[in-house]
Formats: sequence, C-alpha cells, structure tokens
Amino acid sequence: MKKISIGKNILHENDKYAFENAPFLTERKKLCLNMISSLGSGTTTILARTINESRGKMKIGVIEGDIQTDIDAERIRVTEAPVVQINTEGACHLWAPQISEAPKTLPVDDLDLILLENVGNLVCPSAFSLGESGKIAVLSVAEGDDKPAKYPGIFAKSKVLLLNKIDLPARGHVEFDTERAKADTRSLNESLEIFPISAKTGEGTANWYHWLGKSVRKNAPQP
Amino acid sequence: MKKISIGKNILHENDKYAFENAPFLTERKKLCLNMISSLGSGTTTILARTINESRGKMKIGVIEGDIQTDIDAERIRVTEAPVVQINTEGACHLWAPQISEAPKTLPVDDLDLILLENVGNLVCPSAFSLGESGKIAVLSVAEGDDKPAKYPGIFAKSKVLLLNKIDLPARGHVEFDTERAKADTRSLNESLEIFPISAKTGEGTANWYHWLGKSVRKNAPQP
Repeated sequence: MKKISIGKNILHENDKYAFENAPFLTERKKLCLNMISSLGSGTTTILARTINESRGKMKIGVIEGDIQTDIDAERIRVTEAPVVQINTEGACHLWAPQISEAPKTLPVDDLDLILLENVGNLVCPSAFSLGESGKIAVLSVAEGDDKPAKYPGIFAKSKVLLLNKIDLPARGHVEFDTERAKADTRSLNESLEIFPISAKTGEGTANWYHWLGKSVRKNAPQP
Repeated sequence: MKKISIGKNILHENDKYAFENAPFLTERKKLCLNMISSLGSGTTTILARTINESRGKMKIGVIEGDIQTDIDAERIRVTEAPVVQINTEGACHLWAPQISEAPKTLPVDDLDLILLENVGNLVCPSAFSLGESGKIAVLSVAEGDDKPAKYPGIFAKSKVLLLNKIDLPARGHVEFDTERAKADTRSLNESLEIFPISAKTGEGTANWYHWLGKSVRKNAPQP
C-alpha cells in the first residue's frame, strides 16, 4: 500500500479571524459553549432536552449555525428558549465575525448560559474560535469508535465529549467499543470529561446537566 | 426568533485549484467516482462490500482520503484491492493537486473503476472537483431525513445517493422518513439515482452494483 502525506492546512490562512466576541460575554460573565459535531449526531435533540430538563434551574439561550434553513432553530423555538439562527450560506463552519451580533440579539442579561450549535461538521469548526468559554464535542455511537483517532482536532480541544445515542448499542443494533473511543480521546486530552448519554431516552444526561450547572456557577458573578 | 444571514463562502477563493487529474483518467477511459459522506455513514464498509461482491466482474482500485491515520486503507487492503492512502493532515477535504499522483500509483491500466473516498465531511468536499467522472453521495439514515434540506450542495451535484444503514429503521431503532429525504433530494437534482442500501446486510446493494457495471461499460473503450 502506498501512502502520500501532504501538509496542507487551508484553515491556517484564516487564523486572522480572531475572536471578537469574548469581551462581550466575559464582561457579563456569561458562559457560552460551542457545540461541535458531525451532522446527525443529535446535537439539536441534546439542546432541546437540556433546555426542557433545566427549566427553573438554568436559563439557556441558543445560537444555531447552519448552512441554510431554519430547521434547527424551529426545533429550539418550541422549547420557548430564546434562539437566533445564523445561516452561513455555503460556509462549512461559523466564523467569529459571523456571530458577533448574535449574542446581542439574545436577552443575554437574563440568561445563565448560551449554547451555540455549530454547522454539522466535525472537522472545520474545531479550528475557529468564536470567543466561546469552551468547546463541547458530540459524537454519536452510530458514527463509529474509530472517529477520535481519525478526527483528533475537536477531541483534543474540547472540555466535554457527549457520546450520544448510547441506546443503539445497548439494544444490539450498532457496534461501538466505548473503551476504545475513551482511550483514544484520553490520549489526546487527559482532562476531557466524557459523558455517555442518550438524548432520546435521557440515559446519562444527569451527568451532563450536573457538569453544566457546576460550570455556570463557577462562571457566574460572585455575590 | 431573529435570523442573521451572511453570504460568506470561504471555498470560493480556492476555486483556482482546478482539477488536474481528468486528462490522465479520461485518456485511459477510467471511471473515477468521488464518494462524499459525513463521517460514520459507512462509506468504507460500502467500498469493501462492493469490492468483495464485484470480484471477477469488475476490478476496483481505491483512493482513501483522511485527515490522518491509515485505518480506512487498512480496511480496504484486506479485500486485496489496490489502495492508496492520502492524509490531508488537517484539511477537511481533498484538493485536486493532492490526488494528482494517486491514480498513477495504482495499476490503473488493469482497473475498471477507481473509487475515491473523500474526507468524512458532507460539506467541504462537495465544492472541490478532483477531476472525477462523478460524485456519489452517501447518507446514513442515522443522520436524519432533514439532511438533504440542510446540506443541499452534495445532493445537487451527485449522480447517485446511497442511502445507507436501512436495516436500522427496518428494525424500529431509527426514525427516518425516506419519502421526505427523496422528495428533498429530487427537488435539488431531478436526475439523481437513489439507492437505499444496507452495507451491513447487503440489502439493496444489487441496484448499486448494477448502476456501477452499467456506468463502467458506458465509460470503457469501445471495441
């Protein structure tokens, strides 16, 4: 087998787009998490469930990034959480300048937390800081346990990995070696928190809510 | 709900990378299909099954594009098909200059068909021609029936859509409205051939092999 390696990183030339949004959020001590996943990982379902199950405990606003359509924002809107949709119209990830207006259109002072769902793509969004407080990787077990090894960027940079759709292998319909995926991600990022969850059944989500609550309290203004 | 639209297509500036590979392949009348899918759609499994079940009928060579690792090429290698691995080392899609050497390292004159698996990403690879004869989109039903509407680029440009993992909804474990997905893709691309398949069980794959055989014969040198 021949192997050709080519060092070509088209993202590097865009690094000049530094984050412009951090001051707006940090001055207000608002936690903003940039959720990055491949399409179909269930991130919008995770957001909707998180909002519904945090009602009365945490006020969450959402920024939805999609190439086009309002489909995801519509799904958030039914939860009655404030949401803003950004359409990149072809671009495969959000850029910091694109979201600079978004937090200002949300009722930020009334919120505890902003969850930002990036364009469905596990590769490009991980290279672009949006001024967020941290990145959250979402991987569905239907995507395969070899993905941390093959797409290491996002796993190396995230605070949390939500390993979603764990109801599928539990019912014997998808093979996924959780220990392999955990070992590969830990080798990239020792401090990564890994929460196996099912946004469909709710299994494991309490650990995620606990982490979110702790992070919001840590970030909030001290009395 | 507020909506912000931003026309920003980072891919446009890279259009100067035109395809350099078409002459090499067209002079030899070799069909080369650029397979584009999100990660975890099962494309490598489709390739391995297609090679195994075409033995004696079609000689297939493979170009594997990945950000890093040889995992996919190793999976192809066990089929004994000739394979070359390209590592983009960070880039989210293959560029035409990256694959210009790859067909030459395969025994092209002995092959009927080259299947090229792009980096796992449904967005960026669709914008870059590699000099291929056509694009094949692969979507797993686990990714959701809203994906053609949300990620229209690849569906508009492909000759075939392989709708993979149809064994999952058949067993009641994934909801997927095939008619919605078909209607959305047909509205983007009237001539798109759609083959629902399971690369795991083999269901529906005969239609895909039939299309491949027909396309290879159509493309081959006339006696």
